[in-house]
Amino acid sequence: MTYCLGMLLDEGLLVASDSRTNAGVDHIATFAKMHIFEEAGERLIVMMNSGNLATTQSVISLLRMRTQLKDEESILTVKTLYEVAELVGETVREVVNRDSDGHLSASNVDYGCSFIVAGQIKGEEPRLFNIYPQGNFIEATKDTMYFQIGESKYGKPIIDRVIRRDTPLAVAAKCALISFDSTIKSNLSVGLPIDMLLYRTDSFAKAIPHRIDAEDPYFRRIRQDWGKGLRQVFSKLPDASWFDE
Amino acid sequence: MTYCLGMLLDEGLLVASDSRTNAGVDHIATFAKMHIFEEAGERLIVMMNSGNLATTQSVISLLRMRTQLKDEESILTVKTLYEVAELVGETVREVVNRDSDGHLSASNVDYGCSFIVAGQIKGEEPRLFNIYPQGNFIEATKDTMYFQIGESKYGKPIIDRVIRRDTPLAVAAKCALISFDSTIKSNLSVGLPIDMLLYRTDSFAKAIPHRIDAEDPYFRRIRQDWGKGLRQVFSKLPDASWFDE
Repeated sequence: MTYCLGMLLDEGLLVASDSRTNAGVDHIATFAKMHIFEEAGERLIVMMNSGNLATTQSVISLLRMRTQLKDEESILTVKTLYEVAELVGETVREVVNRDSDGHLSASNVDYGCSFIVAGQIKGEEPRLFNIYPQGNFIEATKDTMYFQIGESKYGKPIIDRVIRRDTPLAVAAKCALISFDSTIKSNLSVGLPIDMLLYRTDSFAKAIPHRIDAEDPYFRRIRQDWGKGLRQVFSKLPDASWFDE
Repeated sequence: MTYCLGMLLDEGLLVASDSRTNAGVDHIATFAKMHIFEEAGERLIVMMNSGNLATTQSVISLLRMRTQLKDEESILTVKTLYEVAELVGETVREVVNRDSDGHLSASNVDYGCSFIVAGQIKGEEPRLFNIYPQGNFIEATKDTMYFQIGESKYGKPIIDRVIRRDTPLAVAAKCALISFDSTIKSNLSVGLPIDMLLYRTDSFAKAIPHRIDAEDPYFRRIRQDWGKGLRQVFSKLPDASWFDE
């Protein structure tokens, strides 16, 4: 499993991903799920993946190889993030078709994967896409300004409670860490470290994701204070009055 | 979907269920999912169901009809709650086999269902069972003293944070309502009213579930104060320090 989160806010973009990959509980490894494609001052594209690791790695590798080919369209040459999403979707279909054909198809393996694609290309606002295993995709809007892929349920309530379009990025980062903490607590297949990137609209600055592990002092503080705060709020609520009255 | 919750605590049992049933988003109805079988002063058995409504209704109907047959073993005559769980499991298998045979089996319908069985029979401590769609079952222990069936993820983190074996029933009721609130907020197929029953060990009192709808003043207060409290705790946490430093 996996947990990846992308938010499109007034200030810019937040993307975050865990880094645990497992094929059974006795086959666990750490793989970064955040992939960055950029041209300084012109475009930033961040892709995060969940699902079959072979498929997602191949999709990323093919997309990256094709940015090297001079005469071919690639995610570094197309003019809009919409076209980037199209290219990712096409590549997903291409890899799934390749790997699920012939002798592999009988093995009942799920080759599917999902991607979150976030970024900005000069001339456009920042945009955020969710690409389905079928290769089609949806875009975030003012009403639905975040996407989750992978194990999304445990970490959703806090986002729904506090995030609005105008939430500052530094506050959204705090919320994202709480969302990851809840997920990691409840699902063994989601694990540290977390990679997080905050991108301010129109900055086109070099993207350096922040890596957060169990020793990260800010994350430790957030986890601790949040847990303590919740228990305090809970203990202050009145007990059920209709029992033993 | 459905959300049902059973807890086995030092003080006794807590059971709670929502009451929404849906077959598609345009076919929504209210069905109580809490079924009580009792003999005053001698036994209390509460069953809650999730899954195929036709199957669960038939299971409950058959179990109830068989309590009327003089010479047959029924959930009102067996001596332990373990045997009650066995009878429920057998009946689940019986109904699924009956309904999925022949012409219905081709229709790709999921006949499966799960039950939580909670209660106390004189001579035993209170016990809590989770019966799977296959008819086998597990029992709650000191380590794992609660079961959820249906849409369990959204409402799980708060239980894990605050419930221990020695949590008083009135406090557990508060926690259960927060757990239901989180689930109802996030999943349209879980809906009010909630039926909740608190049972004090060895009381064998007449079981009268408390029905909680949107107008219930205690539930309203809990929802409101919890949401407000969470946002306050959140706003007091420091923002991400490593951004824009």
